[in-house]
Amino acid sequence: DFESALGEMTPAFGVAEEALERCITGGIIKYDQTVHQILDSGKDIISAVRSHTPLLSVLLYGPPASGKTALAARMALDSEFPFIKFISPQAMVGFNDMMKVQYMQKIFMDADKSPLSIIVIDDIEDIIDWIGIGPRFSVTVVSAIRALLRQNPPGDKRRVVMTTTAQREALSQLNMLDRVFNAQIPVPNVQGLDALNRALAKGGMTDREAEQTMALVESEKGSQISVGIKKVLEAVQISQAVDMKSEKCAEVLRAFMVSQY
Amino acid sequence: DFESALGEMTPAFGVAEEALERCITGGIIKYDQTVHQILDSGKDIISAVRSHTPLLSVLLYGPPASGKTALAARMALDSEFPFIKFISPQAMVGFNDMMKVQYMQKIFMDADKSPLSIIVIDDIEDIIDWIGIGPRFSVTVVSAIRALLRQNPPGDKRRVVMTTTAQREALSQLNMLDRVFNAQIPVPNVQGLDALNRALAKGGMTDREAEQTMALVESEKGSQISVGIKKVLEAVQISQAVDMKSEKCAEVLRAFMVSQY
Amino acid sequence: DFESALGEMTPAFGVAEEALERCITGGIIKYDQTVHQILDSGKDIISAVRSHTPLLSVLLYGPPASGKTALAARMALDSEFPFIKFISPQAMVGFNDMMKVQYMQKIFMDADKSPLSIIVIDDIEDIIDWIGIGPRFSVTVVSAIRALLRQNPPGDKRRVVMTTTAQREALSQLNMLDRVFNAQIPVPNVQGLDALNRALAKGGMTDREAEQTMALVESEKGSQISVGIKKVLEAVQISQAVDMKSEKCAEVLRAFMVSQY
Amino acid sequence: DFESALGEMTPAFGVAEEALERCITGGIIKYDQTVHQILDSGKDIISAVRSHTPLLSVLLYGPPASGKTALAARMALDSEFPFIKFISPQAMVGFNDMMKVQYMQKIFMDADKSPLSIIVIDDIEDIIDWIGIGPRFSVTVVSAIRALLRQNPPGDKRRVVMTTTAQREALSQLNMLDRVFNAQIPVPNVQGLDALNRALAKGGMTDREAEQTMALVESEKGSQISVGIKKVLEAVQISQAVDMKSEKCAEVLRAFMVSQY
Amino acid sequence: DFESALGEMTPAFGVAEEALERCITGGIIKYDQTVHQILDSGKDIISAVRSHTPLLSVLLYGPPASGKTALAARMALDSEFPFIKFISPQAMVGFNDMMKVQYMQKIFMDADKSPLSIIVIDDIEDIIDWIGIGPRFSVTVVSAIRALLRQNPPGDKRRVVMTTTAQREALSQLNMLDRVFNAQIPVPNVQGLDALNRALAKGGMTDREAEQTMALVESEKGSQISVGIKKVLEAVQISQAVDMKSEKCAEVLRAFMVSQY
Amino acid sequence: DFESALGEMTPAFGVAEEALERCITGGIIKYDQTVHQILDSGKDIISAVRSHTPLLSVLLYGPPASGKTALAARMALDSEFPFIKFISPQAMVGFNDMMKVQYMQKIFMDADKSPLSIIVIDDIEDIIDWIGIGPRFSVTVVSAIRALLRQNPPGDKRRVVMTTTAQREALSQLNMLDRVFNAQIPVPNVQGLDALNRALAKGGMTDREAEQTMALVESEKGSQISVGIKKVLEAVQISQAVDMKSEKCAEVLRAFMVSQY
Ligand SMILES: Nc1ncnc2c1ncn2[C@@H]1O[C@H](COP(=O)(O)OP(=O)(O)OP(=O)(O)O)[C@@H](O)[C@H]1O
Ligand SMILES: Nc1ncnc2c1ncn2[C@@H]1O[C@H](COP(=O)(O)OP(=O)(O)OP(=O)(O)O)[C@@H](O)[C@H]1O
Ligand SMILES: Nc1ncnc2c1ncn2[C@@H]1O[C@H](COP(=O)(O)OP(=O)(O)OP(=O)(O)O)[C@@H](O)[C@H]1O
Ligand SMILES: Nc1ncnc2c1ncn2[C@@H]1O[C@H](COP(=O)(O)OP(=O)(O)OP(=O)(O)O)[C@@H](O)[C@H]1O
Ligand SMILES: Nc1ncnc2c1ncn2[C@@H]1O[C@H](COP(=O)(O)OP(=O)(O)OP(=O)(O)O)[C@@H](O)[C@H]1O
Ligand SMILES: Nc1ncnc2c1ncn2[C@@H]1O[C@H](COP(=O)(O)OP(=O)(O)OP(=O)(O)O)[C@@H](O)[C@H]1O
Ligand SMILES: [Mg+2]
Ligand SMILES: [Mg+2]
Ligand SMILES: [Mg+2]
Ligand SMILES: [Mg+2]
Ligand SMILES: [Mg+2]
Ligand SMILES: [Mg+2]
Repeated sequence: DFESALGEMTPAFGVAEEALERCITGGIIKYDQTVHQILDSGKDIISAVRSHTPLLSVLLYGPPASGKTALAARMALDSEFPFIKFISPQAMVGFNDMMKVQYMQKIFMDADKSPLSIIVIDDIEDIIDWIGIGPRFSVTVVSAIRALLRQNPPGDKRRVVMTTTAQREALSQLNMLDRVFNAQIPVPNVQGLDALNRALAKGGMTDREAEQTMALVESEKGSQISVGIKKVLEAVQISQAVDMKSEKCAEVLRAFMVSQY
Repeated sequence: DFESALGEMTPAFGVAEEALERCITGGIIKYDQTVHQILDSGKDIISAVRSHTPLLSVLLYGPPASGKTALAARMALDSEFPFIKFISPQAMVGFNDMMKVQYMQKIFMDADKSPLSIIVIDDIEDIIDWIGIGPRFSVTVVSAIRALLRQNPPGDKRRVVMTTTAQREALSQLNMLDRVFNAQIPVPNVQGLDALNRALAKGGMTDREAEQTMALVESEKGSQISVGIKKVLEAVQISQAVDMKSEKCAEVLRAFMVSQY
Repeated sequence: DFESALGEMTPAFGVAEEALERCITGGIIKYDQTVHQILDSGKDIISAVRSHTPLLSVLLYGPPASGKTALAARMALDSEFPFIKFISPQAMVGFNDMMKVQYMQKIFMDADKSPLSIIVIDDIEDIIDWIGIGPRFSVTVVSAIRALLRQNPPGDKRRVVMTTTAQREALSQLNMLDRVFNAQIPVPNVQGLDALNRALAKGGMTDREAEQTMALVESEKGSQISVGIKKVLEAVQISQAVDMKSEKCAEVLRAFMVSQY
Repeated sequence: DFESALGEMTPAFGVAEEALERCITGGIIKYDQTVHQILDSGKDIISAVRSHTPLLSVLLYGPPASGKTALAARMALDSEFPFIKFISPQAMVGFNDMMKVQYMQKIFMDADKSPLSIIVIDDIEDIIDWIGIGPRFSVTVVSAIRALLRQNPPGDKRRVVMTTTAQREALSQLNMLDRVFNAQIPVPNVQGLDALNRALAKGGMTDREAEQTMALVESEKGSQISVGIKKVLEAVQISQAVDMKSEKCAEVLRAFMVSQY
Repeated sequence: DFESALGEMTPAFGVAEEALERCITGGIIKYDQTVHQILDSGKDIISAVRSHTPLLSVLLYGPPASGKTALAARMALDSEFPFIKFISPQAMVGFNDMMKVQYMQKIFMDADKSPLSIIVIDDIEDIIDWIGIGPRFSVTVVSAIRALLRQNPPGDKRRVVMTTTAQREALSQLNMLDRVFNAQIPVPNVQGLDALNRALAKGGMTDREAEQTMALVESEKGSQISVGIKKVLEAVQISQAVDMKSEKCAEVLRAFMVSQY
Repeated sequence: DFESALGEMTPAFGVAEEALERCITGGIIKYDQTVHQILDSGKDIISAVRSHTPLLSVLLYGPPASGKTALAARMALDSEFPFIKFISPQAMVGFNDMMKVQYMQKIFMDADKSPLSIIVIDDIEDIIDWIGIGPRFSVTVVSAIRALLRQNPPGDKRRVVMTTTAQREALSQLNMLDRVFNAQIPVPNVQGLDALNRALAKGGMTDREAEQTMALVESEKGSQISVGIKKVLEAVQISQAVDMKSEKCAEVLRAFMVSQY
């Protein structure tokens, strides 16, 4: 019945808008110039494919919580390509290796029917079951992804693949960087006090609260702070339900930064 | 028939009260300030989710017998969320990896139907079959748990996941700490003579017996004692059926502390 | 048909008397004070469970042939609990891992129906297929045993589990000692000339023969002898059919002690 | 149904022209003398088989993107043998080891029916699931390929096998070079400014753009440049849709060369 | 149908005389005092079981070709026990692990029905698929053999198990020596010129030929020669069909001794 | 259907003449004295079995392309035994381990019905899936081959087994040399200028061409040349279709010798 379930997935020209929107619930805050640059790189690649290049594969990589998934989702939605799909580990819980491969292959085959397609592959390290100790990973899935990402769409169809990872090192060890991706875009943390300040303010704090939080964080960590935008927004959210918002927010941020070792 | 058995598990809005109550048969003795702090942290997280945060994952970690399971159970019951579930290794004896994954996935899917849900995952290291030599573990189960714990509930549903472990090091090696948990709460042993004294007395000994036990323990181990609350209550229980209660209790406690190496 | 065979195993309140009796064919010879102490420790644990403790797990460990199985069998039979079961590697020859787990789980579920139950698990290292090189072992069986031994019986039911092993080191490596057993009882070899003398005599030799054997053994090995009670009885038996009993018996004992490396 | 699908593959005298043409979309640019030499070596081998040699196996090896696949495709098409087949990892996505082996064996058995056959095996390292860490690979597929490549066609049938790889080292470790291939042809990168200039110009740039690009690349990397012809054409293509073509093209080329480590 | 084939094996009281006779085609040549001693040890063990001991397991170990199998076969046949069985790797070619275990278990269960039984297990290292590199071996079969060899026959039934191996070191690594065997009997090579001389003469050479062979061997290898009785008889046989018997025989013997490294 | 296919293989008294003839398409050129010696050793072994020895196993080993398969085929055909079979990796492409074992076992069982049989096992390292890294190999197939090669034919039937390998080291690591083979015959490369000259001339070159080729090879490699007879004939063949035969032939030979490392 997995087979029949696969068959019922509506074919080409399906768009995964809802799933992608859910990845950007915090919006895309322009806390820094880097954010603009990343979005521009993405636009360039997409318009190259829109006009004539048959296949471009992009890798978005960066530390945990830096915003990789949200940025890939944003770019895919902005492309307005007729075929947009989102492949994530969450959609494959309980799948064995063969099912994963068939599931992804089905999506690529559907994409083959669309003149312009964009496929977002989120957390590729989790999809291939990468675990740093050993290391261990699914040879079957690695093998299939390697072939699918290198597969030219037929005729004059064209395709963008956007992949995210917090473990670029894994792809390097698997010898996948050079052979599979045409471009690599780093997604950094929010770095430095100014960027953090903007992120906190645009993330829902009053200017006052943001300033107080900054002061507390700076007093303990100095100005060399670095933390993912997702964690910044999380800290803001957790402190909402509390009396001493700034103190709580600063505490949560510090805890995040400590555990980053 | 595993499939049909899974199907018959009553869906959402089921509460695992009985199973959780059985984890707190010794109550929650306030032998120390730490106990209050742990319970408070838990309350804060739960109320954050109750008011607006969609997903918070918490890790309770500490040495064997320190009371992790009882504390997680207490917090879950106190949340009074409409959907409360308890996932433990005991419930999955005889399951293969796929069955484990389906079992857990079913519970998370049921939780997805409830506006507020809390899931307790006990002894996560045993659920993933972690064995320190190698190390060995179930890649399939690790992979599924990683995805399930990162999976946002749909729409405006909200969820707390409380996970316990005596092997935080395992999760660290699996690169799960940072990427999966929003907060980590340490659960320490009963430490020092005062705390032990309160634990013994509140655990069922007369003041006299507790004092004698303390004296015997101190005479041999000094005041630097450290032992899990579960073991303290076990020692009290074993000595109940014996003539020389304090001697037996002290002997059992010493044996526990020796074997902790 | 394995399933239906499992189903036909008569449920609770079954007693494994015959199998246990066969483990004590050489009786329990009181060659030393240690033998009394071991039996007493066992009695204390059993009476604690008889009166109020829900679950106590005991580990009997010691060198090969030291009498672990016979002592566990003796204690179990003496408990006179309504439910007594014996789990041994011999009963699971030809079982795959899943069958082993189901077989043991069935016994624990049956025990759950009895107010007082005692389960003897013999040679746990063989049940988990432990082999020191690697090391190798069955993760599936380790996982199930770990969960079963930690599983509280339901309601006010109470249970003792007595486990034997000649490879306590294996359990230590598997991180099972602390988390699984409430008490650990060492079972030593027959040590020193006096103990050996008593063992030989009570084992079936005339005083004269025992003395002669002792002299021969002492002359070669000195008084620092150490050998399992099972091997002592074996040596006595083998020498029965021979002309020069003492010489043969001493020869066999020496061979045993040499091969102990 | 995999079996029946295999059966329906049209037997001998089938030609994989379309698939091979798609490998040469960028044509074969004569940027260098090496290109002529490679094509000549190929011709010699093919004519040896055309006239009398029963079996010759050739290995085309070189860095990623150096043009291996296109060259093998060109040679195969130019042979005008009645039986030409293309075996690639893309055609085997979702196949398990046994299916891969059966798929390839079918093609070799079909080839056995043709007086003259040529089989192109692309990216052999991916077909055998080679991953450098470990290393890991499919023993089953290695074993089958080893036997198939050594298998003489029956009677007076004759065969060429052209294999490509970017990981000759893998084949060396698998002890396949000596025993399996009769000739090995290296396919180098575009090396030096002159070759790059010719490649850019023939790849679609105006002479002016090519010169400007060269100047920018040289100013940063010196004259020791080395990059695959596929990447050169990719850089040209990406810069087409952009205003400052030469700058973009140089930037992309530099990024490629950096990531080659 | 493996199951039904197993079922048709005639149960207890079957004797494997023919198979055992075929192991002694070269007879038992008394080339040395050791041969007598080995046979005597065997007789003692067998008569101990004949009179009263329920279970004795013996290990015959020694270098390749030293005569282990023939000696075990001789002892088993001489026992005249009503149940004699021969378990060898040859009988299990093509069996998977489970089939091997079931096959052996069937034989032990049949033996359980006989008052006196003797089971010869030949080349135990091959039965457990032992390969020194790794090392590798079948955990399943090791596990089953360990349990079967330790399993007491029921009631007052009695059993001898004779096991042969050229890799006692393997059993030692598997921790099987101490726990499984009650006695260990070494089977050495033919050692020294006198023993070799007797072996050659009794093996079919004329005194003259034996002497000439000796001279040739001694002149090259000195008197420190050591070679298995099976190889000695092989050398005699090979030289039969040749003109210069002594020269050929000496040549073959030297080749054997060289390859022993 | 594999089973039924096996069943249809015509039983005993089948001869694999065609397959063996195809291994000697280049004839047996007497380029050296060694060739005579190898053939003689083979004849001696075969006549020993023809007259009285029940089982002799021979190993032909040497570098790649040295002529092992052709020599084994020649000897087998010359034996004129009523049962001759050829077991090669090519015949088992797509077989899993169990199928390989059953296929070989069938051939040995058929051989058991013939008074005199000879079985050639080609490239044993490939049949057992030996790969030097690890090393890896099929335990199942190793185990079966080990047993089959040691299995005496029944009654007064007699058998020769001729095995070839280019990886004698593999068999040594698997501990198979001593225990499995009664004789080992090395098959060397064509070594030195004289032997090469004779090989070239008898391989199809005119004396003139051979001499010119020799001069070219000597001028670059000196007189210490060493190359397999199969490669020599390959070089001659490739140069046939070319204008400058001697130059081409010398070039190909040099390439072969370089790649031998
Ligand atoms: N500039 C920004 N870039 C990315 N995300 C942003 C930005 N501003 C706000 N966000 C919000 O921050 C969150 C980023 O989370 P996201 O899941 O994309 O991070 P991630 O790097 O993929 O994390 P993980 O490593 O856990 O996969 C999203 O909710 C997004 O809407
Ligand atoms: N302050 C306390 N905190 C936790 N448990 C307490 C406390 N006071 C009493 N208890 C009792 O102590 C026992 C704690 O056992 P629990 O199983 O929770 O420990 P654990 O750390 O989960 O052990 P393990 O490492 O074996 O899983 C429970 O019976 C609980 O009712
Ligand atoms: N004091 C004693 N303690 C234990 N066993 C005794 C004692 N006296 C006599 N025996 C007899 O000695 C034998 C002990 O064998 P048992 O199988 O219990 O040893 P074991 O330690 O379990 O051996 P193994 O390590 O092989 O499992 C039994 O036959 C038992 O009846
Ligand atoms: N001289 C040339 N040699 C090879 N390819 C050329 C040449 N000139 C132009 N091309 C074009 O360059 C591209 C070469 O790509 P190709 O896929 O063959 O490279 P590759 O080495 O196989 O890459 P990969 O390592 O990724 O498999 C093709 O589009 C081909 O048409
Ligand atoms: N004294 C002896 N002891 C053993 N075998 C003897 C003796 N004298 C003659 N033989 C003959 O020598 C041969 C011994 O071969 P056997 O197969 O028993 O050796 P093995 O040690 O089992 O060899 P392997 O290590 O290959 O299993 C048999 O044919 C046997 O009849
Ligand atoms: N003296 C010779 N010995 C062996 N083969 C010879 C000899 N003279 C000519 N030949 C021919 O040389 C070729 C030898 O090839 P063969 O396949 O036997 O080599 P091989 O050592 O088995 O190679 P590989 O290592 O690849 O298996 C055959 O075609 C054979 O007819
Ligand atoms: Mg992400
Ligand atoms: Mg717990
Ligand atoms: Mg025991
Ligand atoms: Mg390619
Ligand atoms: Mg033998
Ligand atoms: Mg060969």
